[in-house]
Amino acid sequence: MNLSWIREYKPQWLAEDLRIAIFATLILIPQALAYAALAGLPPYFGLYASMLPLVVYALFGSSPVLSVGPVAIISLMTASALGPLALDSSQYIQAAALLTLISGVILLLFAALRLGALANLLSQPVISGFISGAAVLIIISQLQALLGVQASNKNALMMLYEIISKLSLLQPLTAGLGLGSLLILLLGKLYVADLLRHLGMQAKTALLISRSLPMLLVIISGALVFGFQWQNTVAVIGKVPQGLPTISFTGDIVKIAPQLLLPALFIALIGFVQSIAIARVAATKQRQTVNPNKELMGLGSANLSSALVGGIPVFGSFARTAITMEGGSNSPVANFITAIIVAFILLWGSSLLTYLPISVLAATIIMAVFNLIDTATLRKTWQHNRSDALALIVTFIAVLVADIEIGIITGMGLSLFSVIWRASYPYIAILGRIPGTTHYRNVLHYNTENQSDTLLLRIDENLFFGNAQVIEQRIQQEWREKQPLKHLVLVMSSVSHIDSTALDMLEKLNADISEQGGFLHLAELKNIIRTPLKDSKLMHDLSGKIFLTTADADEYLHS
Amino acid sequence: MNLSWIREYKPQWLAEDLRIAIFATLILIPQALAYAALAGLPPYFGLYASMLPLVVYALFGSSPVLSVGPVAIISLMTASALGPLALDSSQYIQAAALLTLISGVILLLFAALRLGALANLLSQPVISGFISGAAVLIIISQLQALLGVQASNKNALMMLYEIISKLSLLQPLTAGLGLGSLLILLLGKLYVADLLRHLGMQAKTALLISRSLPMLLVIISGALVFGFQWQNTVAVIGKVPQGLPTISFTGDIVKIAPQLLLPALFIALIGFVQSIAIARVAATKQRQTVNPNKELMGLGSANLSSALVGGIPVFGSFARTAITMEGGSNSPVANFITAIIVAFILLWGSSLLTYLPISVLAATIIMAVFNLIDTATLRKTWQHNRSDALALIVTFIAVLVADIEIGIITGMGLSLFSVIWRASYPYIAILGRIPGTTHYRNVLHYNTENQSDTLLLRIDENLFFGNAQVIEQRIQQEWREKQPLKHLVLVMSSVSHIDSTALDMLEKLNADISEQGGFLHLAELKNIIRTPLKDSKLMHDLSGKIFLTTADADEYLHS
Repeated sequence: MNLSWIREYKPQWLAEDLRIAIFATLILIPQALAYAALAGLPPYFGLYASMLPLVVYALFGSSPVLSVGPVAIISLMTASALGPLALDSSQYIQAAALLTLISGVILLLFAALRLGALANLLSQPVISGFISGAAVLIIISQLQALLGVQASNKNALMMLYEIISKLSLLQPLTAGLGLGSLLILLLGKLYVADLLRHLGMQAKTALLISRSLPMLLVIISGALVFGFQWQNTVAVIGKVPQGLPTISFTGDIVKIAPQLLLPALFIALIGFVQSIAIARVAATKQRQTVNPNKELMGLGSANLSSALVGGIPVFGSFARTAITMEGGSNSPVANFITAIIVAFILLWGSSLLTYLPISVLAATIIMAVFNLIDTATLRKTWQHNRSDALALIVTFIAVLVADIEIGIITGMGLSLFSVIWRASYPYIAILGRIPGTTHYRNVLHYNTENQSDTLLLRIDENLFFGNAQVIEQRIQQEWREKQPLKHLVLVMSSVSHIDSTALDMLEKLNADISEQGGFLHLAELKNIIRTPLKDSKLMHDLSGKIFLTTADADEYLHS
Repeated sequence: MNLSWIREYKPQWLAEDLRIAIFATLILIPQALAYAALAGLPPYFGLYASMLPLVVYALFGSSPVLSVGPVAIISLMTASALGPLALDSSQYIQAAALLTLISGVILLLFAALRLGALANLLSQPVISGFISGAAVLIIISQLQALLGVQASNKNALMMLYEIISKLSLLQPLTAGLGLGSLLILLLGKLYVADLLRHLGMQAKTALLISRSLPMLLVIISGALVFGFQWQNTVAVIGKVPQGLPTISFTGDIVKIAPQLLLPALFIALIGFVQSIAIARVAATKQRQTVNPNKELMGLGSANLSSALVGGIPVFGSFARTAITMEGGSNSPVANFITAIIVAFILLWGSSLLTYLPISVLAATIIMAVFNLIDTATLRKTWQHNRSDALALIVTFIAVLVADIEIGIITGMGLSLFSVIWRASYPYIAILGRIPGTTHYRNVLHYNTENQSDTLLLRIDENLFFGNAQVIEQRIQQEWREKQPLKHLVLVMSSVSHIDSTALDMLEKLNADISEQGGFLHLAELKNIIRTPLKDSKLMHDLSGKIFLTTADADEYLHS
């Protein structure tokens, strides 16, 4: 448990932490409501997931400032996991809690198995493509609530087409509130902070106030609905039960647990990857490092605590963490205060939420996730690495035209496959000596000189099952083409691993070369491969010698 | 099309090819019958799959001697794909042909996409574990036919348990024929070839005759059944329709095509991996190389031709290819003659097959696949590479306790994951100069000397998303611990690729180091990474320099 911050905490920090907590709450509440709605639950369930997890994460997680709660993409994944199960609303609530519970258990299991390196299973371009795709998906799904149009299609592109073709059926008041809010949020984002600064306000405070605009909008629109009694025309949150729900799982919900396993795994994986990325940004600013296994612990416990009160899956939110970070604090106190404020609202202020219109929440979601659409990474990757850029685009398209789970599988598949594929076709350089030196370089790129009876080959990749065959064929081909030859020297400076398939290949190559009267030598063996090779058949039968450097080999063989 | 052998073929080879073809047929017929039964089809369907594919493969494939037809493991996979679909026997026959058709199309698609490197997707130990597991699975499944005991369990271990518990219910005559055949085959394998050699026969002929034992047994047992009219007590092949079937697909079978896609993909993949391994053994003996894409073409066409006559999926058979190879021939003529003999049997000799007892076929299967259980690879791998050995064992167990498809997925997952995992934790060596030389080596393994303001780090792995984070943390840690430092030199001799995630990391590292007043230098950059790096932000902003060698860097920085 992380309690070291208690000793370091100074009482005079409390005022600043309180100020941060209030602003954080103003951002948190509309997001929590909106993301619960996005997940397919009554909006106030977002508040349930916004108290305990904040506290529990701070105690077990790796980053003191990470703000854990409902996040957009995970809520979308929740909806996509539970949507097709055809549940009634009470079952849906239970199933969401069960999904959260299973995600939490998976995260704790990963932590126990010390699988923190899972965070590195997805490449940056694939993550970027995935998040951009999910953001577009969210925006399309929110158009229904924003405009008051019902769509029956589940596929994003079909849904977009349906919404456009039904535009004439939109509910004017709902659409007015929604589009009005969107416009205000857009103008606010562009101008409010500048305006306030011009009016003489401190830049930091101006920024915080401009970020509270969604909350302000939610309150004003709620007051409008209440004042004009629009609640029968416009969809609103409705009656919020006081206090916390007690969650229990009925038998028919427990039975669907196996169907939730895979979605929960994806939620755990994507949530973890996103959260640790945010925690790393925070840690870099404080010149600290993040411990991935501890991060898994913190996120796992946070999700268990969310499931306990019927909440949705919770992970690190970038927008809310930014607020805590900008305050300059390095303790979780601001997050604790935020959790307490949310609890107060739930206990005594829940009737205030009743009249909040859903379309305004949709506007705040759309505005929030619009920032997630990441074209900068695409542009940059396209310039420097076409295959990475292609992986980004394919993942983006897979999320949009298939669905979010297919998108993840595609992205992971592309990430892993590209690594294997690349390693399967290693570069093999023929080396020669740069005249007058003891340096050996690629004959294609440098003026070199060579002994005619010796072939020097440098293999630029670890040797494993994926490339053993290809490497053998390349070596055999060079050996045949450059005849007459007496010595083959494999320069192993780039080889850090040889698996058993590749070891078999080298043994076979050695036998083959010596059958033809040649000698196979190895040079520049690293110690990490020297040790496992020691007792192998290859070392025992090697027709040639082992040399420390390529120069040593060349010298010894020709002196 | 491969027709070059026609020009090279000498008429005097024909006698030898005829001799080989006769022996090959004697081995082929019991295997073809038995493997079709294993696939869940009437045994004579194995003969349908044994003519055209032999010829078609020879025309389009990459190995002139590969004997293509029914093979044990693929037949097991066919049964495992079609078994759960609850089809009647006429539907089952159509579905098998459809599965063969889809496998063929997938193989041709791979060929068109030039995906021959798919053959390297599985590591040697994983293939060994998979084949051993499948062999045990086949033996267990054949115990029913061997003993005349019916089992209802589909899971191999449960089935074994059920068969043992029902041993008292065995059909004595069936079991007698089966176990008797097994005993004779075992003794034959151990002693017959030696015996014949002792009697003065040529070693090669003795071996071929000892291998015809299964056919001899099948004929004798058929004669016994016919003579004593046992066909109502003992399960026999039964009436074989004369000639070839014409296959057509009814609508209800076409509808299950999507369900056959994944099994067909696995059959294509495993069949290809096995066939190319056999083709490579053959090619090595002839000092030739195998073209994987051409191999895909040949196998794909062979499967299409098998589907055409209602046959099962066909791939290279090791046992039958060995016969052709031992004959010393390098033309497909022996295979052509074999196909013609089989056609004659089907046209005019099919009534000879009617009385062959199934239990004797089961005995020949068990004997044939027993050789596939490969403990040698396990022993060898266990000695040199524990993680490879573990992958072998896990794959073996997955095939046995789950099923054959789970086994493949597990094996492929383990193969790929182990590569990524290993690359995710690269070795990073601190280098120092071996005194009096310009050689730089790992300070842990050599006596070296260092400049106190310079840190030389060699990264022993390509830089990619999977290890960028880990590498950055290691570098930052060394940089902090070894302070005060002025220069950080990354020695890139082992780096053949930098992806965009890793490039981002290096840019960040460069900014970080120079913010602290340090300089980041790169040494021993290979040309293959120099080119893509050229226009990058890293090269533009690099605080230090790029050096050809580590020695150059050390000299320049301290002169």
